[in-house]
Amino acid sequence: MDKFEVKVFIRLRPSVLDPAGEAIKSASSKLGVQGITSLRIGKMIEVKIEGNKEEDVKEKIDLLCDRLFANTVIEDYEYSIKKL
Amino acid sequence: MDKFEVKVFIRLRPSVLDPAGEAIKSASSKLGVQGITSLRIGKMIEVKIEGNKEEDVKEKIDLLCDRLFANTVIEDYEYSIKKL
Repeated sequence: MDKFEVKVFIRLRPSVLDPAGEAIKSASSKLGVQGITSLRIGKMIEVKIEGNKEEDVKEKIDLLCDRLFANTVIEDYEYSIKKL
Repeated sequence: MDKFEVKVFIRLRPSVLDPAGEAIKSASSKLGVQGITSLRIGKMIEVKIEGNKEEDVKEKIDLLCDRLFANTVIEDYEYSIKKL
């Protein structure tokens, strides 16, 4: 059984508004930081998982992303897998 | 003025409990995905920012991370800067 480290990145789809990001963008400007043209907040989920091969782990992570981690109506996800 | 894309990753410090992560871990197992040994949820903030040089942008992002993006009592952050 090998160990894998998976990093999943979940972003709002580009067409979906991000009011929290807008709030932070506006707070940044009040803090004196100018020049921000875009600011979007996403999620990162770091998973350590055991599996026999990378293919199996990929299958599991796809299932988790679709069913549990992301709301695929409004969010996109991508991930990277590293063998430990 | 150059444009930069910054990706900020914010994680709970290893010593800080992550109950939301634990809940997802336990839900994963109910979904039939076994073998997860650790699952931690973090934040990702993607910023597009204009600046004269990378050093200036770094300074701004450090300020934002310390004062706005992360709660440095319980969170660590790291970021990568790419010139567009």
